[in-house]
Amino acid sequence: MSNRPQNGIPSLEPVAGNGLLNRRALLGRGIVFASAAVTGVTTSLTRAGAEPLAVDPWSLEIGTAIPPYERPAKYEKDVVRTLTNPKNEPRNSQARTPHHLLNGTITPNGLHFVVARGGFPDIDPDKHRLVIHGLVKQPLVFSLDALARYPMVSRICFVECGGNSAPLFSKDPVQANVQAIHGLLSCAEWTGVRLSTLLEETGIDPKAKWFLAEGSDLPTMNRSVPLAKALDDAMIALYQNGERLNPSQGYPMRLLLPGYEGNMSVKWLHRIKLVEEPVMAMNETMQYTMRVAGPKVWQFYFPQEVKSFVTHPSPGLTLKGPGYYEISGLAYSGNGRIAKVMVSADGGKSYAQAALDAPVLSKSLTRFRIPWRWDGQPAVLQSRAWDEAGNVQPTRSELLAERGEPKVNPPVTAFTMGHMNAITSWSIDEKGEAKHVYA
Amino acid sequence: MSNRPQNGIPSLEPVAGNGLLNRRALLGRGIVFASAAVTGVTTSLTRAGAEPLAVDPWSLEIGTAIPPYERPAKYEKDVVRTLTNPKNEPRNSQARTPHHLLNGTITPNGLHFVVARGGFPDIDPDKHRLVIHGLVKQPLVFSLDALARYPMVSRICFVECGGNSAPLFSKDPVQANVQAIHGLLSCAEWTGVRLSTLLEETGIDPKAKWFLAEGSDLPTMNRSVPLAKALDDAMIALYQNGERLNPSQGYPMRLLLPGYEGNMSVKWLHRIKLVEEPVMAMNETMQYTMRVAGPKVWQFYFPQEVKSFVTHPSPGLTLKGPGYYEISGLAYSGNGRIAKVMVSADGGKSYAQAALDAPVLSKSLTRFRIPWRWDGQPAVLQSRAWDEAGNVQPTRSELLAERGEPKVNPPVTAFTMGHMNAITSWSIDEKGEAKHVYA
Repeated sequence: MSNRPQNGIPSLEPVAGNGLLNRRALLGRGIVFASAAVTGVTTSLTRAGAEPLAVDPWSLEIGTAIPPYERPAKYEKDVVRTLTNPKNEPRNSQARTPHHLLNGTITPNGLHFVVARGGFPDIDPDKHRLVIHGLVKQPLVFSLDALARYPMVSRICFVECGGNSAPLFSKDPVQANVQAIHGLLSCAEWTGVRLSTLLEETGIDPKAKWFLAEGSDLPTMNRSVPLAKALDDAMIALYQNGERLNPSQGYPMRLLLPGYEGNMSVKWLHRIKLVEEPVMAMNETMQYTMRVAGPKVWQFYFPQEVKSFVTHPSPGLTLKGPGYYEISGLAYSGNGRIAKVMVSADGGKSYAQAALDAPVLSKSLTRFRIPWRWDGQPAVLQSRAWDEAGNVQPTRSELLAERGEPKVNPPVTAFTMGHMNAITSWSIDEKGEAKHVYA
Repeated sequence: MSNRPQNGIPSLEPVAGNGLLNRRALLGRGIVFASAAVTGVTTSLTRAGAEPLAVDPWSLEIGTAIPPYERPAKYEKDVVRTLTNPKNEPRNSQARTPHHLLNGTITPNGLHFVVARGGFPDIDPDKHRLVIHGLVKQPLVFSLDALARYPMVSRICFVECGGNSAPLFSKDPVQANVQAIHGLLSCAEWTGVRLSTLLEETGIDPKAKWFLAEGSDLPTMNRSVPLAKALDDAMIALYQNGERLNPSQGYPMRLLLPGYEGNMSVKWLHRIKLVEEPVMAMNETMQYTMRVAGPKVWQFYFPQEVKSFVTHPSPGLTLKGPGYYEISGLAYSGNGRIAKVMVSADGGKSYAQAALDAPVLSKSLTRFRIPWRWDGQPAVLQSRAWDEAGNVQPTRSELLAERGEPKVNPPVTAFTMGHMNAITSWSIDEKGEAKHVYA
């Protein structure tokens, strides 16, 4: 093999340490990766044309009736959310998305992450109302039927809990998989009415600078949001990937604040009140306040910063012998589009640029992919993302220098340790097993 | 009101007959649609700020535990696919997507349309194999584990049955809703391995010009496909909206031929054989052959042509009094991106351009929207789409002039009457009820 591109197609020479290959080497056409069959990509090989193909038992049976609403195959029963509070005790519940078992960027509705403070309420959609009041010219009450008559808009965007990835604050690397560390993150196509459209109906008192959003769940989740977000891209979301919101996503309606920490996209939304100043709700004082280095906190810090992590390979997905693999993962930023993702297989000593699946959308998950030839030796995989606003995903030590060293250990999930967007490292040992490390 | 734009924002004067408004009138910001409350957009109105808000019963109860895999709310039990063969008798089954009850462009996995010839087979993914043989240099067998090591790609695209919308061939307009007429159409994010990547592994004998794709279901669905499609955008799809394919979508793998008639995206795929000429399978001779005017047929006619239809309002969604509504629907083309969609409220006498939700993707569903002020008088709603390849959606009479008048009546679902992409018309009567008409 030569390092020179042939016919403009990059060669298969590594472009960074430990076997990273050019992102276009296999993602275009025209290269026969002839070593693949030898190195284990093809698990069995038969001259299929020379003998009759075997007939599988399921090809000889009548199949199953198509159901009105379909569920995944029975063989996929372990592809589920992990629950922190399965018995629904009177405390928070978290349900985490199994990103290591998924691919692409859309999260199927059944597996969207959840943080709830009292389970999901049983809301009769015909009786539910949304009130908009406070510093408006005319307070209004909207039924679901009324909202259905307004202009709608659809957009794909991620929602991420402000506390996602908090285990990375732990002094020692928590031994957990990508679902446990980064599973409070999902992405869907949301459809609803822009909040700005409804505020055109109520009118806005010029004194209004913030709004309170409140849910009708028992714990009455509420948050203060700058009015500017309402006039930008805030949405009253009614549909999620085409169908009505799932019960734990706020059925029948939620606030959606693209790019902001998840709890602000208040679910089971029943009230918006325009106000002059933040209401200092518990969720913005005790919780969702960020500790930083020294005797300080950051309050009202909203956007989820640029971030990425590798989903394949990752803990639990053991490599089956040396040879070719694809390294892939998710990148996103609450500040816009992903500009690039760099991947390292040697713990950050060298990086190569990954390919991004199209379309790369603002405030949405972006899937990155890069070919890798594993030589069977230890390796450390990392990804690092840049967004179009110029933000760079920090290393863990860069982030801790700004925020202060963690005080409790392990694992740390206090909300004061939120907005963890540092680089994640997976070590790969000689057996092909992946493990969470700090590197 | 003046016809002049104010501050660059179009006025609310109609831009086409029967109350169609400029697509930017309400989809931007800055217009207070003050008449809305008067004309019924707001169903109730209270000075919410002046009295305590009512407390809903669900705000006083402990909610329900978050499940590992979530289903839609119990109030949405009627949002299901309609089934043509619920008892799974030994014949075709169709399950249709309820587009009048959905919004956005992504079809949730539970509601993706299905055409199956013997239900869905119960395939053990660990035992399933994909064979690629015939005019290749080295025939190969791929397990699911082997495929998982190849470079993957994700893309959003629609799949549509070649027989979708066949009721429009009927001499008299079939009285049915959008689900019954256009429900054999869905859209998802698909992730898998490009077929071209696997053909780089097997090599291609220069004599190969077509390939046979065969499913492992009992009826052994098979089709011939030009090799050029394999080298373009054909995919072995493994994931659908992030999770593994649903059982009736071909679990554990299907061929995906973006833009081509749905049956060619062979489900439960177990064999690809490269050949010199089409194999003349029953599905390309008796079925999926298109009759055209005169004693002729079109065989091997693959792309789903440019098409659109209005989903809101549509039969079953009764308008609740005169006033403002949004007309919205779906547009798509197997030949690329949608260039524009024009909407008429007067049966095609006048048209206005609709807004398109971003991103507008090639061979994907595109949601169009336009504001409409209904005056309570009879109206006829239509949409007409153009694609970037320059194709225009035909009127029904234009299409029938090319294809020949239908010979049976109603309804017509023979596959010889496929590829119906004519304009659909919904009449609205004084009661606000929508009905399928020819106009």
